Amino acid sequence: MSRYLSCRFWGLEPYVPGEQPYNRTYLKLNTNESPYPPAPGVLSSISRAEIQRLNLYPDPDTRVVSELIAAHFNLDPHNVLLGNGSDELLSFCFQAFCDAEHAACFPDISYGFYPVFARIFCVPVQIIPLNADFQIHAVDYCPAGGTIFIANPNAPTGLTLSLHEIEIILKANPDHVVVVDEAYVDFGAESASKLILSFNNLVVIQTMSKSRNLAGARIGFALADQELITDLRTMKYSFNPYNLNRLSLAAAAAALQDKDYFQSCIQKIMNARVFITVELEKRGFQVLPSLANFIFAKPGIPGETYYLGLKEKGILVRHFQQNRIRDYVRITVGTIDQMQMLLDATDQLLKEAG
Amino acid sequence: MSRYLSCRFWGLEPYVPGEQPYNRTYLKLNTNESPYPPAPGVLSSISRAEIQRLNLYPDPDTRVVSELIAAHFNLDPHNVLLGNGSDELLSFCFQAFCDAEHAACFPDISYGFYPVFARIFCVPVQIIPLNADFQIHAVDYCPAGGTIFIANPNAPTGLTLSLHEIEIILKANPDHVVVVDEAYVDFGAESASKLILSFNNLVVIQTMSKSRNLAGARIGFALADQELITDLRTMKYSFNPYNLNRLSLAAAAAALQDKDYFQSCIQKIMNARVFITVELEKRGFQVLPSLANFIFAKPGIPGETYYLGLKEKGILVRHFQQNRIRDYVRITVGTIDQMQMLLDATDQLLKEAG
Repeated sequence: MSRYLSCRFWGLEPYVPGEQPYNRTYLKLNTNESPYPPAPGVLSSISRAEIQRLNLYPDPDTRVVSELIAAHFNLDPHNVLLGNGSDELLSFCFQAFCDAEHAACFPDISYGFYPVFARIFCVPVQIIPLNADFQIHAVDYCPAGGTIFIANPNAPTGLTLSLHEIEIILKANPDHVVVVDEAYVDFGAESASKLILSFNNLVVIQTMSKSRNLAGARIGFALADQELITDLRTMKYSFNPYNLNRLSLAAAAAALQDKDYFQSCIQKIMNARVFITVELEKRGFQVLPSLANFIFAKPGIPGETYYLGLKEKGILVRHFQQNRIRDYVRITVGTIDQMQMLLDATDQLLKEAG
Repeated sequence: MSRYLSCRFWGLEPYVPGEQPYNRTYLKLNTNESPYPPAPGVLSSISRAEIQRLNLYPDPDTRVVSELIAAHFNLDPHNVLLGNGSDELLSFCFQAFCDAEHAACFPDISYGFYPVFARIFCVPVQIIPLNADFQIHAVDYCPAGGTIFIANPNAPTGLTLSLHEIEIILKANPDHVVVVDEAYVDFGAESASKLILSFNNLVVIQTMSKSRNLAGARIGFALADQELITDLRTMKYSFNPYNLNRLSLAAAAAALQDKDYFQSCIQKIMNARVFITVELEKRGFQVLPSLANFIFAKPGIPGETYYLGLKEKGILVRHFQQNRIRDYVRITVGTIDQMQMLLDATDQLLKEAG
């Protein structure tokens, strides 16, 4: 830290993404990447001609991709805003819809970035604990004391609220924006996108990083009532108008158009999720019923011991130090082969632990 | 605007980028893009294999490109931070180094985004008028009342401060950060990057959008003392850690390695700048002596009339409504052929105006 940093950031602890090892090849099951390459059309969309046009700015209004997304969700392009990954859009939501008088409300166990966003935009928080089963209890938000952020499925638990419960929260909070962060929704949960036209206080945020196999391209999108999108657009145009690059826009368009490939990747991951859940339960793990592309599991040995043991054997999973969840690890669901490698390493560890 | 937008943003007017026409092919001389494609190595760097890896997150620490940039400037990678275009890095500077007690100080005529950044981060501004010749007067900043933002060359004038003048400002402001925005520096001005090791209050910001022909890839970088970079890195990791996508990182690395192509593009633009300056002066225009890839010129007819007349003829230049500069237009320097098209259209307009 320099002595020039604004005092409002003194002591700010930034978000820590999952390890991105540089010097050793790990089986990475720690950042919920898809194990599958992007849709075949992505390859042809990033053509020689498209690369040769990189001297030109992208369309800041991202019209082509916004229209494709709108069509996919039966919405109007005015209900869509693209971001440089969903993190940027979550940032804009904290900035636009929270302030000293409007706290950010979210669960004690959720996406670890929420408290960091609150901190950097200097907004108070209202932390609402998950119940004993790690579930979000809709009634606890009826009403909440400010802008609500709910990851659905929640991270790192993988547990899900029904659309009915989301609707109850929306109805109980007409004076607050409800942001539903659906990074993992495509792996079996139901999207709140179909409520957009009924609730002018709902923002749905999705990403192409997981179910569209495009984590490396950084594409997120927000769906909301036109007025809320206008607010988020004001943030974008006051911060970084050209936030999406040309090649990512081309990739996004191609990925959105290949619905079969999208479905087939999701199905394979859902199958692998059943496989790894059953196999870990056989080995005495408690595994929460996940609808995401990861599972949250409590091994028979301490979470950190398991995490470190796997790392030693070349497999990265995510372990969190927060008290309530330190017995658990979050494991990305990859291919069946990758899950088998995890099981083999797990068997060795359990044997070593006696 | 929705009723949910935080009241601190009521009335916020976002930055308006140069028109990006959608429905007609214009000769675009309004956003200072390079007329040349990216370096040949960019094509091969965005390989089939690289596209197939888009399912994986990019390196959030951007190590490969940071090392190349550091080597280019004889600095350490700890003196470098990449951004999703230089606008994102400027944002981080306003956020990190300005607050209610530390105003943002910049010229009345400069990059139109500075007042928007100040507005969105709720920081007071100190506007320091350019002198009558549109020059930044270094003494006016000795000292300034807060964090200083100087575009060098300045936009939209193209005029330049010497390294000596930048040094005077740095010395007079040991308690303030001085941000030198060098988006256009490669077209003939001298970079303050060589002062980084001598001044711990200096941030130099550059972009690959102009001289590296990569506006479509969104790559900017900040150079500064390690502690200032740590501050900016804290902003990045509290806002959007994976802010650069994989393909842009590949493109950046390739562009940085082809120094000959870089120099040859710059030289062609500098030659075209001499050509268009001389030719417009022959036609009675006043043209400020630019060291950027644009010129700032006062036609014999009103600036807006000239801008609209050119638009009618299929050529876009940039006109600003600010009082001091409404007689002028900013014209991107393209190829000689493009400049000839501009001259032909200009001749027609002058003839029509009688």
